[in-house]
Amino acid sequence: MKDMSDNGLLIVSEDLCQQLVGRKEAFDAVQDVFAAMARGDAYNFPVIREAIGYADALYGFKSGFDRAGQVLGVKSGGYWPGNTEKGLTNHQSTVFLFDPDTGRLSALVGGNYLTAVRTAASAAVSIAHLARRDSKVLGMVGAGHQSTFQLRAAAEHRDFEKVVAWNPHPEMLPRLEGVAHEVGLEFQAVTQEELGAQADVIITITSAFEPLLMKDWIKPGTHLACMGTDTKGKQEVDAMLVAHATVFTDEVAQSITIGETQHAVADGQLTKDQITPIGAVINGDHPGRGSDEEITLFDGTGVGLQDLAVASVAAKLADKAGLAGRATL
Amino acid sequence: MKDMSDNGLLIVSEDLCQQLVGRKEAFDAVQDVFAAMARGDAYNFPVIREAIGYADALYGFKSGFDRAGQVLGVKSGGYWPGNTEKGLTNHQSTVFLFDPDTGRLSALVGGNYLTAVRTAASAAVSIAHLARRDSKVLGMVGAGHQSTFQLRAAAEHRDFEKVVAWNPHPEMLPRLEGVAHEVGLEFQAVTQEELGAQADVIITITSAFEPLLMKDWIKPGTHLACMGTDTKGKQEVDAMLVAHATVFTDEVAQSITIGETQHAVADGQLTKDQITPIGAVINGDHPGRGSDEEITLFDGTGVGLQDLAVASVAAKLADKAGLAGRATL
Repeated sequence: MKDMSDNGLLIVSEDLCQQLVGRKEAFDAVQDVFAAMARGDAYNFPVIREAIGYADALYGFKSGFDRAGQVLGVKSGGYWPGNTEKGLTNHQSTVFLFDPDTGRLSALVGGNYLTAVRTAASAAVSIAHLARRDSKVLGMVGAGHQSTFQLRAAAEHRDFEKVVAWNPHPEMLPRLEGVAHEVGLEFQAVTQEELGAQADVIITITSAFEPLLMKDWIKPGTHLACMGTDTKGKQEVDAMLVAHATVFTDEVAQSITIGETQHAVADGQLTKDQITPIGAVINGDHPGRGSDEEITLFDGTGVGLQDLAVASVAAKLADKAGLAGRATL
Repeated sequence: MKDMSDNGLLIVSEDLCQQLVGRKEAFDAVQDVFAAMARGDAYNFPVIREAIGYADALYGFKSGFDRAGQVLGVKSGGYWPGNTEKGLTNHQSTVFLFDPDTGRLSALVGGNYLTAVRTAASAAVSIAHLARRDSKVLGMVGAGHQSTFQLRAAAEHRDFEKVVAWNPHPEMLPRLEGVAHEVGLEFQAVTQEELGAQADVIITITSAFEPLLMKDWIKPGTHLACMGTDTKGKQEVDAMLVAHATVFTDEVAQSITIGETQHAVADGQLTKDQITPIGAVINGDHPGRGSDEEITLFDGTGVGLQDLAVASVAAKLADKAGLAGRATL
């Protein structure tokens, strides 16, 4: 974002992000940047992700430049598995925005809450554009912290009546059930097969390294948003299901290397050219879902531009409301 | 550096860095981190450098982790050629330090002044360890902004009597002459050949894409610190001179790809195994200069760990003196 150098750089805390960036703001920002990516107006830079050899931590960067939105920057942070016992979130990140006209730091934005809402917004964008209009049952695979964000965001984009959910640790399901009830939806804990048989829309949000849903369990016309796979080797659904579906993603290059399509592509069941950036659907360059029988699958790998987009919204809203902290370098 | 989370993250401005990080502090920090790199206790992550397709800017990251010093972080910024006419420095950067125990942001440090002093410190470290003790004449190739930092830092490590200097634009030499006089040294503007004939130590600090010094112009026993080449295609000295010298560098991998040795290695005149990390000399694992006749050459490519090392010193000194700004994310 543009430098506010007369007043110094903006500091936008985690609390302020929670206060200012709701699901609507995140949805619009993510939808816009996916569209810009598909037009070639915004691009992600290579991702750095390093095991630092200390505290079992993974540390790195996701970064990019949205020329259309004039947003340049980087999200830095990673995964510190020992944080929970210190009372901190394992995933820690901070977003740094730079003025594209001068290269000066323009804002420092807490990235933990924003990462959760931008990931939920990404699946929600896919549901808004790809799920059948008459979808009634939402299937949730995974019941961790992030699943509650996914459920709340998804619930706003179709007239769902019911949530069916499965998690490898069933004792985690009651939290998700509570959120379902909060948003006025029935809730049923089910087996994986039963989830496939009932759901019209399915969100997978786990850290699995093996398929949790098989092709034959899924109904025609289902939309899947696979949100958990972000590393080589991870997998949430059957590669045959991926190959059988019409596949969309945030970024094709990332999808085939570290996303859910990596296995189907490695098997030769799917080619890069068969994967459509969801931005093309948003822009009207691809029709999206072709029929009520088609299975659509969105591979949400998570790109730096999503982080920058929501952080830029947070910084602008905080600045406008006079709530941002200020510092001078 | 460790999180000071009780008091929030530290904010260390450009002014504060100038006030707190002198040549001695930068020299010690850079020397220590080069030693840690050679021991395998500190490592740089891959460098990202992107032409963003806007404002002719190059933007990117240099990052790393020093396990010995417990310093984790990234320098982000780049080169904005249009800044000068806006009254700003073309090179803009900021350093972000993270707590290696938790991944939380611990300090935000202005990176412009620090980049200049850490680059000067790097050449100074090479002079301290590799130049002949009786060196009297310092040759300067290049007379831009950075050359004044290089001259001041180098002057402290041998009993120089005189500076001989050459620059493609001779009208820039008087500034460097002023600095030479300030530190009590004679100054003479010379041709490139004359510079080679007189100098015992030579620092090259230009943006050249062709050799400015040829092998036959250089005296036996000379030490060269080649500091300008940081990109594929750039070159400051004759590849035959590099092949003839005993070669040291900050990081071998970077030296052979984007540093001064890239051309000699590409020509097959020099192999990777013939290049010694200067940290090995600092640690006593390599004897350094072998004789008074040997030409030694240090390829200073500039690594992220140098930036993090000086930024960590700035943050610690600012914290100790109660001068750092504070913010909470």
